[in-house]
Amino acid sequence: MLQSKLFTRTIKELPKDETSFNAGVLIRGGFVNKLSAGVYSFLPLGLRVLNKINSIVRQEMDNIGGQEVLMPVLTPKDVWETTGRWEAFDVLFKLKGADEKEYALGATHEEIVTPLVKDYVVSYKDLPIAPYQIQTKFRNELRAKAGLMRGREFLMKDMYSFSATQEDLDRFYEVAKHAYFRIFERCGLGDITYLTYASGGAFSKYSHEFQTLCQAGEDLIYICDNCRVAINKEIIEDQSSCPICGNKEFRQEKAVEVGNIFKLGNRFSRPFNLSYMDKDGQKKDVVMGCYGIGPSRLMGTIVEVSHDDKGIVWPEEIAPFRVHLVLLSGKEDKERNKKEADALYERLLAKGVDVLYDDREGVGAGEKFADSDLIGCPIRLVVSDKTLKEGAVEFKRRKEDAAELVKIEQVPAKV
Amino acid sequence: MLQSKLFTRTIKELPKDETSFNAGVLIRGGFVNKLSAGVYSFLPLGLRVLNKINSIVRQEMDNIGGQEVLMPVLTPKDVWETTGRWEAFDVLFKLKGADEKEYALGATHEEIVTPLVKDYVVSYKDLPIAPYQIQTKFRNELRAKAGLMRGREFLMKDMYSFSATQEDLDRFYEVAKHAYFRIFERCGLGDITYLTYASGGAFSKYSHEFQTLCQAGEDLIYICDNCRVAINKEIIEDQSSCPICGNKEFRQEKAVEVGNIFKLGNRFSRPFNLSYMDKDGQKKDVVMGCYGIGPSRLMGTIVEVSHDDKGIVWPEEIAPFRVHLVLLSGKEDKERNKKEADALYERLLAKGVDVLYDDREGVGAGEKFADSDLIGCPIRLVVSDKTLKEGAVEFKRRKEDAAELVKIEQVPAKV
Repeated sequence: MLQSKLFTRTIKELPKDETSFNAGVLIRGGFVNKLSAGVYSFLPLGLRVLNKINSIVRQEMDNIGGQEVLMPVLTPKDVWETTGRWEAFDVLFKLKGADEKEYALGATHEEIVTPLVKDYVVSYKDLPIAPYQIQTKFRNELRAKAGLMRGREFLMKDMYSFSATQEDLDRFYEVAKHAYFRIFERCGLGDITYLTYASGGAFSKYSHEFQTLCQAGEDLIYICDNCRVAINKEIIEDQSSCPICGNKEFRQEKAVEVGNIFKLGNRFSRPFNLSYMDKDGQKKDVVMGCYGIGPSRLMGTIVEVSHDDKGIVWPEEIAPFRVHLVLLSGKEDKERNKKEADALYERLLAKGVDVLYDDREGVGAGEKFADSDLIGCPIRLVVSDKTLKEGAVEFKRRKEDAAELVKIEQVPAKV
Repeated sequence: MLQSKLFTRTIKELPKDETSFNAGVLIRGGFVNKLSAGVYSFLPLGLRVLNKINSIVRQEMDNIGGQEVLMPVLTPKDVWETTGRWEAFDVLFKLKGADEKEYALGATHEEIVTPLVKDYVVSYKDLPIAPYQIQTKFRNELRAKAGLMRGREFLMKDMYSFSATQEDLDRFYEVAKHAYFRIFERCGLGDITYLTYASGGAFSKYSHEFQTLCQAGEDLIYICDNCRVAINKEIIEDQSSCPICGNKEFRQEKAVEVGNIFKLGNRFSRPFNLSYMDKDGQKKDVVMGCYGIGPSRLMGTIVEVSHDDKGIVWPEEIAPFRVHLVLLSGKEDKERNKKEADALYERLLAKGVDVLYDDREGVGAGEKFADSDLIGCPIRLVVSDKTLKEGAVEFKRRKEDAAELVKIEQVPAKV
């Protein structure tokens, strides 16, 4: 993409009520724009990052048999009353329609997906299934101060599994757990994300959170370094030993919950009468699980944990562009510089490389470099008088300080 | 995709309150599921169709310089008050947050995009720009009876153009008009979609609707067969002649509005103080246009106009799958039939063809054919005892009655 055509730009002044680090950097870089507390617009650069995260999540869900759907945001009161959550779920946004019917804005979709699936599940042969969606969710939070990490409106991938037996659910749950690890790994958070034991409710001893170490996180987790797992605050108050090795030594860390998985048993299938006919002709409750992940929160978390004082350092797979090609028009032969940079841009595009090409005129080298560091693509290529003298471009990785000259013809192979 | 793995199925009984033809067929085919009046879930087949429509819309918008963004659904009262539409826009869903702030659910986004763009536009050099989004919109309709054609919640592509001068807007408006024609053409509606003159408001004599002829449509349009354009009801009451040729003879038809484009002038830039510095250093209002299209409504419209008594006849580019491969296990050599069909499925996938493979066991030929006609993919391939005797498959186009035998090795080239 030509940076001269991008309608956004980096900006220096933040909205005065913006206190979150991640939102601040994302606003300055032109990734998001703030509308009101906890409510942001995604600009072209930010939407590219979000779509790359979505695409990783989608691939991993499809790989384990997930089937993508899209459920409504407007959910009628009656389904929430069926499960007792119209009153019990404290962050539902509620509203009344012109037809005097009451709705909640979807905050989670057990109440929608369970009756939906009921239309298609008759026998054990129809199970297991795992519909999922990637959709905007709403939570009526009193305060929303953590930028993209806790919004009133945010993106969520929510998958729901439907199995015939507890054993089938247990098996799928483990498969989903591994898919989650792959997602965090691909988003560059693998090393600092901990499977964290949380309370399980009526149907299993534990549920699991995925907690990423982060100073801006709102949670405290307790890591067992023997097992490389953690337990959350509830669990440490309840039992003071590691659920795996029994160890009683924990390292306390601040963290942000980037995903959670939960065995629901028949908590929702029972009130909606979602049952199936077993092999022996017996009617049984479908056994459910749910699996959440927040792509927009992930984006905010990545910014919190992967930056330096110049800007964002995007992990490879979710950077808005792989390469930031920077043209310095120079003093010697302005047209030659542009011609060489244009040609390199076209060659990289032809090779299928994502490139943001800073072709802006009348912007100095210092400003271009500052913008490039702030935006944070993994590789920066500079075309200037100096590099062209060597028939080369300057090649620099965002996360390294050292730059090197690379002959132009070798660049496509090297990125 | 293996049909045996699809969690949905075709169903025979409709929800008793479903009176819309398009929603009825889409529910029976397993494309959508109804949650409440005017509110539907998209199932895997339906989401595939919707994504193909979105992808056409996205390509055509990108081609004319559109830049995709994603704006919030929760929009604060103050921006609507700035334009006087908090009260004047009669179908806004309104709600109050835990922080006692009032919000409207996004029904259109002029009030969001205008102040957003203000953060990035300083000079005439920053114009023209055209951000757009594809997003769920909400309208608090009293009645919602037309299935996917008029929902309380629906998908919308809304683009907003920002130009320095009226001439620049006029030029972009024509470019956008042609992009719209290409979208309807690619969605199979080109022949029956009319550019329709509608009232223009304060800033231009006319705005334009794109109206598709459809018996289930809620609008009446008046076609001038000289010019192949139409005028809407407002215009015919106001003036009784064709805006192009002056002709006074019109053919009245029922139609559904599938898109509309509108010159906004400074209707929104003025209240939000969105101005720019001109070449001569003068501050001027940015001149705006807006361009809407409803992908979910398009989907409903296509079903209304492209079906027969057996089911849907999807246009090529938006069918959920290009090919429906149907395996009849037969009586002679069940395993051979399956082996041949599996191999053909793999070969088609390897060639990049979208295939829905009906590999279901224990389902008779009659039911498989009925499902295939209902689902409506452009090409049906049948593998059976009879066809394999000839080393062939039965090849049939959904919109033709005749079927032919095609040698298996020739199939990939023919689809």
